[in-house]
Amino acid sequence: MNQAVAADPLLSTDFIQEMVKQMRAIDSYGNYDGWSVEKILAPYVVTKEQRREMPIIGDPDEILIARIKAFYNAVSSLIEKECGLMASPVVNINHEGFGRVLITVGKLVVMDKTLRDVHRYGYESLSKMKDEGDKLLSVALEIIGKYPEVAGM
Amino acid sequence: MNQAVAADPLLSTDFIQEMVKQMRAIDSYGNYDGWSVEKILAPYVVTKEQRREMPIIGDPDEILIARIKAFYNAVSSLIEKECGLMASPVVNINHEGFGRVLITVGKLVVMDKTLRDVHRYGYESLSKMKDEGDKLLSVALEIIGKYPEVAGM
Repeated sequence: MNQAVAADPLLSTDFIQEMVKQMRAIDSYGNYDGWSVEKILAPYVVTKEQRREMPIIGDPDEILIARIKAFYNAVSSLIEKECGLMASPVVNINHEGFGRVLITVGKLVVMDKTLRDVHRYGYESLSKMKDEGDKLLSVALEIIGKYPEVAGM
Repeated sequence: MNQAVAADPLLSTDFIQEMVKQMRAIDSYGNYDGWSVEKILAPYVVTKEQRREMPIIGDPDEILIARIKAFYNAVSSLIEKECGLMASPVVNINHEGFGRVLITVGKLVVMDKTLRDVHRYGYESLSKMKDEGDKLLSVALEIIGKYPEVAGM
């Protein structure tokens, strides 16, 4: 194991690994081949300074929407791995950058989120992104544990 | 009451009335003012002959998608009226005319439907459209009755 990997165990976590898998899945032309995890996931990192420089109003482009979908696909995939039931994400974003994301398992809504200012989508760091993914995962698993019958429908 | 109305009680049913309300809601320019119910809802009727003449593959336009949304908005609105809880429709249609429609009440998915060949969307008659709406409504109310706690979350 080289020093760089040893220095950042974050990059070998399930969530980050799943994110990379999702990003590679939408990389039809193999542009990411040979790229490091940090480089592939770099567009997800938007610092406070960067956000401040972005326009208040803006239209999200297709690449950004694909990136948002990859994030919620990763969350769904981890939910599936943990509970053994299929999780389906639905990402609905209008051209003004507002939207709603749902993840359903059976007849149960395990995540329901309103998105705003999608053109400024991003996380302060990869670590914050992982925290958000883990939080959504644990809330989802909690509700599945509470209503397994509905999740199994 | 005039004879035409007496002849077709269908047009005064809750479902058809709600459909008209939804269509008027998207009629920003008042084009439908003074139109009869049949005329407003006419685009929903696609007979077998008409369907046969439509291309197998086609892109749904925005007006058609607005019409599909109006239908599921009407179903949601009737669910709300019956159960007293908020019902939220999510209509997701891609540019190739495939999609998924969900209606959620609280954390419960009360309708989950895959749409295909959206460019040929329509019903054989207004009566068939009402049957479909009523069926979706009754299935939704059944599942809400079974899991009221999840619907109330």
